[in-house]
Amino acid sequence: MSAGAIRIDKNGGVTTVTLNQPERYNSLSIAMLKALSQTLSTLEADRGTRVVVLAASGKIFCAGHDLREVRGQLGHQDMQRALFDLCSKVMQQLVNLPKPVIARVAGVATAAGCQLVASCDLAVAADTARFATPGVNIGLFCSTPMVALSRNVHRKHAMEMLLTGEMIGALRAEQIGLVNKVVDEQALDDTVYRMAGVIAGKSSHTLKLGKAAFYQQLELGLAEAYDYTSQVMTDNLASADAQEGICAFLDKRNPEWSDR
Amino acid sequence: MSAGAIRIDKNGGVTTVTLNQPERYNSLSIAMLKALSQTLSTLEADRGTRVVVLAASGKIFCAGHDLREVRGQLGHQDMQRALFDLCSKVMQQLVNLPKPVIARVAGVATAAGCQLVASCDLAVAADTARFATPGVNIGLFCSTPMVALSRNVHRKHAMEMLLTGEMIGALRAEQIGLVNKVVDEQALDDTVYRMAGVIAGKSSHTLKLGKAAFYQQLELGLAEAYDYTSQVMTDNLASADAQEGICAFLDKRNPEWSDR
Amino acid sequence: MSAGAIRIDKNGGVTTVTLNQPERYNSLSIAMLKALSQTLSTLEADRGTRVVVLAASGKIFCAGHDLREVRGQLGHQDMQRALFDLCSKVMQQLVNLPKPVIARVAGVATAAGCQLVASCDLAVAADTARFATPGVNIGLFCSTPMVALSRNVHRKHAMEMLLTGEMIGALRAEQIGLVNKVVDEQALDDTVYRMAGVIAGKSSHTLKLGKAAFYQQLELGLAEAYDYTSQVMTDNLASADAQEGICAFLDKRNPEWSDR
Repeated sequence: MSAGAIRIDKNGGVTTVTLNQPERYNSLSIAMLKALSQTLSTLEADRGTRVVVLAASGKIFCAGHDLREVRGQLGHQDMQRALFDLCSKVMQQLVNLPKPVIARVAGVATAAGCQLVASCDLAVAADTARFATPGVNIGLFCSTPMVALSRNVHRKHAMEMLLTGEMIGALRAEQIGLVNKVVDEQALDDTVYRMAGVIAGKSSHTLKLGKAAFYQQLELGLAEAYDYTSQVMTDNLASADAQEGICAFLDKRNPEWSDR
Repeated sequence: MSAGAIRIDKNGGVTTVTLNQPERYNSLSIAMLKALSQTLSTLEADRGTRVVVLAASGKIFCAGHDLREVRGQLGHQDMQRALFDLCSKVMQQLVNLPKPVIARVAGVATAAGCQLVASCDLAVAADTARFATPGVNIGLFCSTPMVALSRNVHRKHAMEMLLTGEMIGALRAEQIGLVNKVVDEQALDDTVYRMAGVIAGKSSHTLKLGKAAFYQQLELGLAEAYDYTSQVMTDNLASADAQEGICAFLDKRNPEWSDR
Repeated sequence: MSAGAIRIDKNGGVTTVTLNQPERYNSLSIAMLKALSQTLSTLEADRGTRVVVLAASGKIFCAGHDLREVRGQLGHQDMQRALFDLCSKVMQQLVNLPKPVIARVAGVATAAGCQLVASCDLAVAADTARFATPGVNIGLFCSTPMVALSRNVHRKHAMEMLLTGEMIGALRAEQIGLVNKVVDEQALDDTVYRMAGVIAGKSSHTLKLGKAAFYQQLELGLAEAYDYTSQVMTDNLASADAQEGICAFLDKRNPEWSDR
């Protein structure tokens, strides 16, 4: 299955979405963003997709916006605003997708490409991967990428990337919290798909409830967050999967989720 | 002094609250939660308690909710909601207690047990300690535990624990910010009680003002936070202990706090 | 150029502001705070200043408030509140300055001195530097310093410094996110001014837009932050520097910013 700019591979509940324009550095052109947005919309309701892996072909994971396209829009503020709105929509689709998303990062992820990684729930990188928010080098601060970046790492680490525009290596990205794990490039798929497989083995209904609640409660004060999540847990307990899970645990058997 | 599920030990201003049902994995049954809530209420006004250490007996620090009890409540949403409200109340009592609380973690802290650690002001763990938010394994996402967890560590680290349900070791917990310090199990008490002793040597009035202000200002924007804490410092300066402390410092002598 | 308590050195777009009362531990007396506030106001509009380095002479970077002065104000709450307001204003001037600020930390930074470091966008420390928020030792909790500290590091790390009052070393400060980089004291200037030089080579207009947006968006929810920064990027694209930067990049030449 292929949608041109994007390749889709499904295997055992894990759907891999691959940015597939390596000759264009997998840049987030309007066409690529639309393809990605549509792909995520489709996967949202796809019962065969329990976990999403976001990958890229070639040596550049994603170079951010397509600057030739951006240059072509100079002077057209409404088109520019529409582009950033579309890009921001895609990033929020990753956050709001009711299924966990793991970034599989080999190569270089810059600007909105780095933002993609930051917007995924989890990220695993090859030790050769590199990251930057280099907009400042071309006079265009990475202001939308920093929304995701600054919610992943401490502010001085975010600011260093944003103000210097310099590349950081995979190990540094791991140290600061931008990626969960760094492995030898040859072990990347094993690590990513092992993690995806573990998560795909959980109840999709539970993952959906939990992921949505996670990002929701982060924006609340402590008392509100507890009030909100206490109700989420109560609702969660009313589901067949929680009842099955608890009984299976107490009966020392494996649970059977309602959707598989 | 003992309250059944909980053991209380007092020594030089440091009160150790020990979850004491190792045969039940120190799980947070309603009875345990009520005992803990009452204990914290009592300690709030106890002049002999300057610092609290939260500990547990046995090899399991705390396994979270009592799943047999939860199973018994299936179908009774009002009882479930009351359980999560009670649990959330206890977690917030730790945060709102006017005295610093240090978690002393040996063994395994999972689900609401991990949340207990995250809810304490400080945490010291034995190198053999382990942590998880494994609700997803039983179809019940750790939605209330994640309120505390996600306010301790970066979001990708929290998400990895929440989505995979896998155990992390003490060193990883230290790296990500869930615990302050990891030491050899034999050095655990020395480290915890040295830290508790240092803090117990401070003015209780000052600790009370400062701890409350810490969590309060975290929920404010920068300008508001400065406006609020400027008044807190002004109020703090009006206290006998600040005046004594400043004079003692300038006179090169040890301060004598009003409450000891 | 010198303003008494503060020394100003300009070199190639990088302006170094040096706290210059080593015999008084560079403490933030009212006079020092006023000098610093005025200096920052002046630099805000100074076209020759693209990046600010905040440094200090002597072995103490800054010891926080001048306790003799504070003692002299005991009983005068209006004067105390004015002092904390002035100090909080200076800290926010660092955050709101439309130019990046790098703390160059050699020696000891305590209380409001540690807050200065936390309030800068970036910080580089000598391996001999040390940090503390020791107000609790004199009965006066570091409540305003913690506003900056707790927005730099995880809460358990902030709480450990605040509750124990103990000093942490430079490497620990780097681990927890309080400083970006730690280097041998002899390499400190090279590292700081290399970083400052890299940033000074960027478009000042872009840095101004980006820095302001960074702190603004941190206080917003995700959707609001994307809405806001999408407009910031659109506005940024309307600037001569972004247009020059994008064209220069695509034409494979160095950009020439409008203000140099």
